[in-house]
Amino acid sequence: MTKPKLLIVGAGGVGQVTVHKAAQFRAEFGGIVLAARNADKLAAIAQEVQERWAAPGEGPLIETMVIDARNLEDVKRVISETGAQILINVASPYCNETLLDACLATGTHYLDTALGEDEHVEDIKAPWYSYVEWPRREKFAGKKLNAFLGMGFDPGVVNIFCAHARKHHFDSISSIDIIDVNAGSHGRYFATNFDADVNLREVKEDVITWEKGAWKTIPHHSEWMDVTLPQVGSHRVYSMGHDELQSLAYTFPGTERITFWMGFGEHYLKVFNVLDNLGLTSSIPVEVDGVEVAPNRFVKALLPDPSSLAPDYQGKICIGCDIRGMKDGQEKRLFIWSNCDHAENYEEVGSQSISYSTGVPVITAIRLMANGTWNPETMTHMEELDPDPFLKLMPETGIDWHETELPLDGSWPFTKPGAA
Amino acid sequence: MTKPKLLIVGAGGVGQVTVHKAAQFRAEFGGIVLAARNADKLAAIAQEVQERWAAPGEGPLIETMVIDARNLEDVKRVISETGAQILINVASPYCNETLLDACLATGTHYLDTALGEDEHVEDIKAPWYSYVEWPRREKFAGKKLNAFLGMGFDPGVVNIFCAHARKHHFDSISSIDIIDVNAGSHGRYFATNFDADVNLREVKEDVITWEKGAWKTIPHHSEWMDVTLPQVGSHRVYSMGHDELQSLAYTFPGTERITFWMGFGEHYLKVFNVLDNLGLTSSIPVEVDGVEVAPNRFVKALLPDPSSLAPDYQGKICIGCDIRGMKDGQEKRLFIWSNCDHAENYEEVGSQSISYSTGVPVITAIRLMANGTWNPETMTHMEELDPDPFLKLMPETGIDWHETELPLDGSWPFTKPGAA
Repeated sequence: MTKPKLLIVGAGGVGQVTVHKAAQFRAEFGGIVLAARNADKLAAIAQEVQERWAAPGEGPLIETMVIDARNLEDVKRVISETGAQILINVASPYCNETLLDACLATGTHYLDTALGEDEHVEDIKAPWYSYVEWPRREKFAGKKLNAFLGMGFDPGVVNIFCAHARKHHFDSISSIDIIDVNAGSHGRYFATNFDADVNLREVKEDVITWEKGAWKTIPHHSEWMDVTLPQVGSHRVYSMGHDELQSLAYTFPGTERITFWMGFGEHYLKVFNVLDNLGLTSSIPVEVDGVEVAPNRFVKALLPDPSSLAPDYQGKICIGCDIRGMKDGQEKRLFIWSNCDHAENYEEVGSQSISYSTGVPVITAIRLMANGTWNPETMTHMEELDPDPFLKLMPETGIDWHETELPLDGSWPFTKPGAA
Repeated sequence: MTKPKLLIVGAGGVGQVTVHKAAQFRAEFGGIVLAARNADKLAAIAQEVQERWAAPGEGPLIETMVIDARNLEDVKRVISETGAQILINVASPYCNETLLDACLATGTHYLDTALGEDEHVEDIKAPWYSYVEWPRREKFAGKKLNAFLGMGFDPGVVNIFCAHARKHHFDSISSIDIIDVNAGSHGRYFATNFDADVNLREVKEDVITWEKGAWKTIPHHSEWMDVTLPQVGSHRVYSMGHDELQSLAYTFPGTERITFWMGFGEHYLKVFNVLDNLGLTSSIPVEVDGVEVAPNRFVKALLPDPSSLAPDYQGKICIGCDIRGMKDGQEKRLFIWSNCDHAENYEEVGSQSISYSTGVPVITAIRLMANGTWNPETMTHMEELDPDPFLKLMPETGIDWHETELPLDGSWPFTKPGAA
């Protein structure tokens, strides 16, 4: 591919970061198209991108197209009309199946940041990739098309951190704890940082985690630990099912435990538990006055638009991998992580860090796909590719990363800046 | 009226108690019709009434009719077909206007237990009776028809307690505090004791209360006090707007303060506040995926049916009036109250005490209307009638009442049974 044209599908928080970052590195691409449902939103984003990134006198940096991302024919039409070579799926996970099929039908490379989901089905069995993605792997390989799965931060960069650890730091890996803490404050009573319906369902579902070399299912929020992480300090984090476990369990064979931990504050848990106990987190529609509405969709309609949180968001996030294993016959524990700062990210691209930390890895990977560095010509999980070029390019694209050995006793030697 | 035929409209919790009590005192009526939307529900209630109250070999105690209580023509049809002389409105408050007009059109006496409400309008200004009820008063008088407004317990019996206090205990009344505590437990995570949409709105609305001889509006739950009441012990009660204030302020001129207080436990408040902060208590429809749904209707669809709580309900309620004034030149404080026991009421009529304490006063008043004791031949608030026959008849109909002088210092000399 020489300077491929990008088709970014989805104009939510992640879509906005992705298109800003694509515009920033536009010299590496043959064009940028942003496609979503809402024409007004598209126009507003296009104007914002132009004002922020265009040189004086430079023409339009991006094109926009209205698309119905759940309609196969419409997606094929947009791909055909734009002539895009890479489709970047940052739409809702309900669109994955259609977007994958449109890429197969049109010979288009693909990238997404989250597993495909069925809107009204809950608690699907592991492995989650066996429903939508893996059945299409041979088709992508047959057409020599790239499909990068789960290429945000988590999943995405954390998978690459694991690949980096395996390549450079360990002879064998015994456990991987992926930890995601958002220590930021949006100042609202309650809000989710990405689509509320997707987020509430993700948090409410039974936790599927990898332990003693097998899948284990436990109730949500039933296992937790207290951690102290760089820049964000001490937090209680709860075991949660998450996309990356669903590939790492297979790409890191022999690893005893692979667990994802998400930080939740007391207030979030109070509100979430009320919603959950009342059935308001469910994605199964209920009948109200003659119409069918899914509770999580109803709650979403009442909550703030996640992208509206950005202007007031303060504080930092920390996402990292706490990895244990053996190196040269010695036990070793390594932590690899990134921080983002909500206000800094807003200053740069007008988005909060949850969106920023997803969109920057997307464009980092797309830069590698565009210049041929990452070209597996098949569907791939991100830990299956060489981590080195990605980790070299991510800081330049917008996010630094760090690594340090940690005490084997499980303690956390970090202190929050300003803390004693 | 010689043994009038009753048309009971509404088959919710109160409707069920009302029809059971009507059946119990059926010798005083010329027939009993239960009308509601749901034919299956009607059939189930009719069977239950028959099994509980019919003598061996006795024919059907009640008739049932399907009705659309918001459709004037349909209500007129049902009145005409049944030949009822008294319509008892225990349907939702959204039906009041239609049911009042149907009574006027057909020359039928009327009774309800709550103010008429517009489903999607909030925080209407005082006096609340000036919208639906009072504009029809002259029409009822012109046709010599009775319309008993707000004839449940609160409003209803508490208004009669006030009339009793004025008639027998005070020369002048300076303050009335109506206090409603449900110390029962239904064992569910969260439930309302009557229609959730009506209840949530009632609790969420700004509080309109009568203070220093004028209406005062304050945020909900912003004023409270701690009380210790007979049988139920100590509770925190919160000032709330309530129907009875809207008539007592006019029928008890010169009374400085008339306030309604409702007990809320910490768990109820936690859940309510989450719902309220998220906008889930609102009755104003929002658009979700192309359809319009009012949040309080959506929450109602997820909560337990109030009548389903009855089998497991344990504990008691206490509703009373704490009245201050002058008698023979001396300050005086009087408390008049009733208790009900959820399990006892369930044993008797298959309903919990919130429904029971509303339905029993309905039939007490209907017995007085039926035998001509209460026959004002106009629309009336219950405190405008002679309280004596009602308070004599209510114990026989199912609920005792009590009165005692209380210390002028505001203290509560009651102890909960079993407490030290």
